[in-house]
Amino acid sequence: MTKIEPRTLKGFRDFLPKDARRRAYVLETLKRVFESYGFEPLETPVLEYEDILAGKYGDEGDKLMYRFTDNGDRKVAMRYDQTVPLARVVAQYQNKLPTPFKRYQIQNVWRAENTQRGRYREFVQCDIDTVGLPSLKVDAEIIACSLAAIKKLGFKNVKILINDRSIFKDLKPTIVSAIDKWDKIGKDGVLKELINKGYASLDAEKLLNNFNDAEPTPNTQSLFNFLKAYEIEKDKEIFFNSRLARGLDYYTSTIVEIVSDDYPFGSLGGGGRYDNLIGMFAGKDIPAVGFAFGFDRLVEAMEVLNLFPTNLFTSKVLVAFAKSELQEKALKVADELRNKKINCEAYLEDVNLEKQLKYADKKQIPFVVIVDEDKLILKDMTKRSQEELTLDQILKQLS
Amino acid sequence: MTKIEPRTLKGFRDFLPKDARRRAYVLETLKRVFESYGFEPLETPVLEYEDILAGKYGDEGDKLMYRFTDNGDRKVAMRYDQTVPLARVVAQYQNKLPTPFKRYQIQNVWRAENTQRGRYREFVQCDIDTVGLPSLKVDAEIIACSLAAIKKLGFKNVKILINDRSIFKDLKPTIVSAIDKWDKIGKDGVLKELINKGYASLDAEKLLNNFNDAEPTPNTQSLFNFLKAYEIEKDKEIFFNSRLARGLDYYTSTIVEIVSDDYPFGSLGGGGRYDNLIGMFAGKDIPAVGFAFGFDRLVEAMEVLNLFPTNLFTSKVLVAFAKSELQEKALKVADELRNKKINCEAYLEDVNLEKQLKYADKKQIPFVVIVDEDKLILKDMTKRSQEELTLDQILKQLS
Repeated sequence: MTKIEPRTLKGFRDFLPKDARRRAYVLETLKRVFESYGFEPLETPVLEYEDILAGKYGDEGDKLMYRFTDNGDRKVAMRYDQTVPLARVVAQYQNKLPTPFKRYQIQNVWRAENTQRGRYREFVQCDIDTVGLPSLKVDAEIIACSLAAIKKLGFKNVKILINDRSIFKDLKPTIVSAIDKWDKIGKDGVLKELINKGYASLDAEKLLNNFNDAEPTPNTQSLFNFLKAYEIEKDKEIFFNSRLARGLDYYTSTIVEIVSDDYPFGSLGGGGRYDNLIGMFAGKDIPAVGFAFGFDRLVEAMEVLNLFPTNLFTSKVLVAFAKSELQEKALKVADELRNKKINCEAYLEDVNLEKQLKYADKKQIPFVVIVDEDKLILKDMTKRSQEELTLDQILKQLS
Repeated sequence: MTKIEPRTLKGFRDFLPKDARRRAYVLETLKRVFESYGFEPLETPVLEYEDILAGKYGDEGDKLMYRFTDNGDRKVAMRYDQTVPLARVVAQYQNKLPTPFKRYQIQNVWRAENTQRGRYREFVQCDIDTVGLPSLKVDAEIIACSLAAIKKLGFKNVKILINDRSIFKDLKPTIVSAIDKWDKIGKDGVLKELINKGYASLDAEKLLNNFNDAEPTPNTQSLFNFLKAYEIEKDKEIFFNSRLARGLDYYTSTIVEIVSDDYPFGSLGGGGRYDNLIGMFAGKDIPAVGFAFGFDRLVEAMEVLNLFPTNLFTSKVLVAFAKSELQEKALKVADELRNKKINCEAYLEDVNLEKQLKYADKKQIPFVVIVDEDKLILKDMTKRSQEELTLDQILKQLS
């Protein structure tokens, strides 16, 4: 046969078991927290009619969107975020959905990003959004839930930064995006950027001082008030930050970001209230608040900070056999383990014990049960210790 | 704003919370069983270089595949199944993967099918495959795991049908595909189809009688033997079926299908051994056995047979308040419930109690805790009963 070179597209990734397991752990943890606050799962298709997505993400979005003409001559586009599909769903099933509609959505999105900046073209977004209520109590709940989720993943020294996007509403987008970089590049960096963009040095300085000394808006003050109902440590976990602007310009009031002092490489997630966006398919404004975790950033930060549990294996036990004629017995032992809800793998090829142990090592399976003539041996692969035990003792020890 | 008509593409579906939850239940159940047998998760990208997928699925595959030219002028195609990506992964990461490589993969695939036949264009495949070992013990394990999975979902009267694809190897594909319909359209149906295709009536009759009376091959006999090591009821759960052919022609020996007598609308999954396919990117043959569940068929069958648990809700409790000034207290009660791992939702809008109860009904939340002056009331929404309880009693009752 002609050999085709096996390869993946730039910006696209395979996830082999070790990585896939870690990602599943993060997803399941987030899901559990989202569900504990009453957010429900929603899934939308990868492909949408192009006109549903086009023009919703600015010029850059239109440029980076994957789109094509399908076999039926329909113009289609691949999911670019989860907010526009949410807006479509809210309009399309108005009578079926409750108000508020609280949903989480954890799916891939595709953007033809420049991969040299370390960006991926296929990546996961994790969103929670509450649609339909204007109350700041909703903003507070979204923040409380996001904070609970990030803490559940094991992050420490977590801070929620809060501001009100409306204080920027009279400023040009270039100024806003410069101010948003304040905590990254410092006040001098922002000043330089503003001056480069043609602002007089004194004007720019004055503008920045104004923002630095700004007080929370009444909106932000009320929000802080509503946050008191949750188990959040004020002054330790939530902070007003007048320099926070967020890149996207669809936010209408509350904006929020989560950072951790332990991971100084950028925010772990962000969101806010956007009361004019979700209704675009319904033909009327529908209030909404949302928060999105940067999934790849979370996974990366958890690797750096060593937050993954050490017991993220698929199989807890390999059942090995000391002699060929004991292989069938080993299969029965494996069935007994499974009946006790212990994930286990039985070695299937007829090879010697040493090779079976090497396989357990390669797959990082923490225990091996060796089925020998008239006895069972439990081997702890981490401690490199072993002891002879009865099946009952093994089941008990591994449960 | 201009209103864009909210709509989805033909053959593509949104999954609103109720459906999304059911699908998640099926996926999680399957995953748990797959992992209990040592299968590990694998994820591959939605987009592949076109030459990786093209020509691998016959003329029909090439016709139904979603493909296009991306922004960087690369010819790309959307995942069409999970076996070709598996083959690519096995070749691409040869030194990283253990032998055997046992993986499960549960992702969407896309096919531009004729939707009038009730087919979807975006649907989920659930595959388990063991790559690298020629032993029939592997075939037996794949069958045992598949049977355990389908039983775990609650299916009763399940049968595994087994045959050996090699008995068809001298026959033309048209004959094989006709024979494969035997159990659906009956012997007379198959006869008619063969005669329509130009076979003499007597030849066709003789051919079919031969198949009907065929004995299991030595391969199938050994397989039955290896299956004895598992908790499978021979003659009740596993059957030799000489008419079983399976549509795909890449199978080389064992072929298998799962059916349930309770659901006479087709098989719930199928698979077999395919020793010449997986190595196409490695430039050498690599033995493999796999099984795939038809995910949408499973979900549909479970709806028909009423196999979904009744407690598939996201929130177990809605925390409601009898008066506005008790809303903050209600939020604190909700936090207490969450601390005990009870999923709950707090009603956030300041409305009267009746409206809150209606919301619980609409979302099918089974319990409501009503926070009243100096007392808590637990309301069972299914039984329409209620009683005054302490917080501790409520926590205990709902845990």
